[in-house]
Amino acid sequence: MIDIVKPTLLLDEGKVRRNIDRMVSKAEKAGVQLRPHFKTHQSQEIGRWFRERGINQITVSSLDMASYFAADGWDDILVDFPVNLRQMDTINALAAQITLGLLVESVETAVALNNQLTHPVQVWLKIDVGYGRTGIPYNDAETLGKLARAIAAAPKLELIGILTHSGHTYSAASPHKIVTLYHESVVRLNTARYRLQDEGHHVLVSIGDTPGCSLTGSFGQVDEIRPGNFVFYDLMQHQLGACAADDIAVAVACPIVAKHEMDQRVIIYGGAVHLSKDMVMLDGQVCYGLIALPDGDGWGVLRYDAMLVSLSQEHGLLRVHPILFDQLQVGDVLMVLPVHSCLTADLYGRYHTLTGQEISKMRTNS
Amino acid sequence: MIDIVKPTLLLDEGKVRRNIDRMVSKAEKAGVQLRPHFKTHQSQEIGRWFRERGINQITVSSLDMASYFAADGWDDILVDFPVNLRQMDTINALAAQITLGLLVESVETAVALNNQLTHPVQVWLKIDVGYGRTGIPYNDAETLGKLARAIAAAPKLELIGILTHSGHTYSAASPHKIVTLYHESVVRLNTARYRLQDEGHHVLVSIGDTPGCSLTGSFGQVDEIRPGNFVFYDLMQHQLGACAADDIAVAVACPIVAKHEMDQRVIIYGGAVHLSKDMVMLDGQVCYGLIALPDGDGWGVLRYDAMLVSLSQEHGLLRVHPILFDQLQVGDVLMVLPVHSCLTADLYGRYHTLTGQEISKMRTNS
Repeated sequence: MIDIVKPTLLLDEGKVRRNIDRMVSKAEKAGVQLRPHFKTHQSQEIGRWFRERGINQITVSSLDMASYFAADGWDDILVDFPVNLRQMDTINALAAQITLGLLVESVETAVALNNQLTHPVQVWLKIDVGYGRTGIPYNDAETLGKLARAIAAAPKLELIGILTHSGHTYSAASPHKIVTLYHESVVRLNTARYRLQDEGHHVLVSIGDTPGCSLTGSFGQVDEIRPGNFVFYDLMQHQLGACAADDIAVAVACPIVAKHEMDQRVIIYGGAVHLSKDMVMLDGQVCYGLIALPDGDGWGVLRYDAMLVSLSQEHGLLRVHPILFDQLQVGDVLMVLPVHSCLTADLYGRYHTLTGQEISKMRTNS
Repeated sequence: MIDIVKPTLLLDEGKVRRNIDRMVSKAEKAGVQLRPHFKTHQSQEIGRWFRERGINQITVSSLDMASYFAADGWDDILVDFPVNLRQMDTINALAAQITLGLLVESVETAVALNNQLTHPVQVWLKIDVGYGRTGIPYNDAETLGKLARAIAAAPKLELIGILTHSGHTYSAASPHKIVTLYHESVVRLNTARYRLQDEGHHVLVSIGDTPGCSLTGSFGQVDEIRPGNFVFYDLMQHQLGACAADDIAVAVACPIVAKHEMDQRVIIYGGAVHLSKDMVMLDGQVCYGLIALPDGDGWGVLRYDAMLVSLSQEHGLLRVHPILFDQLQVGDVLMVLPVHSCLTADLYGRYHTLTGQEISKMRTNS
């Protein structure tokens, strides 16, 4: 194992490549386009592992992320985020260079965008199929029609498709329910598609969420899928049944700094600034992470005899079963499997592979 | 106002200096040493504002942070975190250069530390006065005595004091309860102090938490206080009654990217990676932040007619009262007052002052 002195973001390259391979094969077999979301890894180098598997279209969640990947040769990028009109300079620079996809969800934005663009862009309509975060309700034919006509009338905007993020699969109670929601989303997207088709607008249909795309046996009537988290997976996905524990491809290595015999508490150097404060409920308790023990160059099986029950800025507090407690010593390293790998990875500037290589990534905030 | 194109961490220098001044004056008046915790701001430049007010001893939460501030001339630094034996190189480099204070809570750590040190350090015992995160229970005279003797026998360790972080004030139900807990902590620390004194160990008593230090009228029988968050404060502190809304000195400026008439939702460019996922309960609802509107070069009063109810990686979803909803437009900027300023600031590499200056800070993870 590489020498750990403080909280370190580890990446198991073999698992990452296996996760990529599985989703690429599944999409190929189903004949749907895979446009993976790169917000989870945010790394040019990991992006190249997708390119090696034939991927040439990607999704990102910010214009800065689009610029970062465009600089590495990606020339078809969808920014899966409502257009931020305050970044027109970045939009124009990207539109001059690549095939840029943008999300539009109001006539005002479509008009303002068209007026300020110096190069054409592809436009996607964000559809709300029930998640309620953002987008046009799938059954609001009037708004959809109005917006499609406004885009058709805007010479710099090409209406290419409609998309959704079925984020409500994350609160589904079972894998069966996730798949049901996935197919409900597909049906609703197609409701919107045919409404637009009736008015002469032919659009692609794109869907994207890791639980649905991982668990569904068939993708249904969609042209494109945009999952992202599957590259690493995490405890939340595992809890949803979307991955095996062994598919989780990142962990934060954390030194043990204190032990308290009385109530089997173990304190690790690893807090909110190393893991993020996202949590899952486990047996009615708030859980900020589970652990594995170091094993060879990586980590072993997911342990249920310890749970990260509290996070301060730099500390993590584990409740540990007495048998495991006796095995752990101050100075040992524990591997924390993150609740939400996107947010954990976002906290770091690089990954460390199990073979000792460093993989750089972008940072969200300068 | 400075030009905002994407989520930007703003700092009101006037408020920061006022917050510093208030705590410095309070400590001076009470005759206690103020050793402010610098984990909240993590900035050499802001550290100098404390130095201008006569502060010459500081607290940090990691050895990296100690190195960062030592590089700016701070020569008396307490690392308020259990010793991480895996960073002995950093410990020895710091101990050679400055007066370094370390936390020890077990005989094993004291022995290992002494064996590996090349220069002497000051040692503080972390006392648990009821928070239950880490530390030796204040009334465990046997463990305390054993540890004090082990330290006395270690030539490189000087037992200087006992300290606590009364983090349980954060879950107190009222300002009155916070002050009661503060004084209970002081009494318990002194219980430990006198136990040690009976065995011939004379120690300083140090206490630190922003709610307690902000709200108490008198500090009681302590030698030193170590609050940190008060430099910026935040919604959590405001909710506890530890500060006025107008004392909150940082905000994240976020562009509005979408509006949804139907249920008065406003979507901002500002998510978990810009704000952190810490939350408070407000009227029985999970709240990830409240807003203020831009006002002059800064922001106006705290608004209760909008609430950040959900955060994705890059999105924030606000529920907004209809009257305010009509006033807000896509492209406008909202100021989000953070729930927990320590975690929010940690996500950024710099602050932007209201007069357009950039203030650099360290980053936790490389």
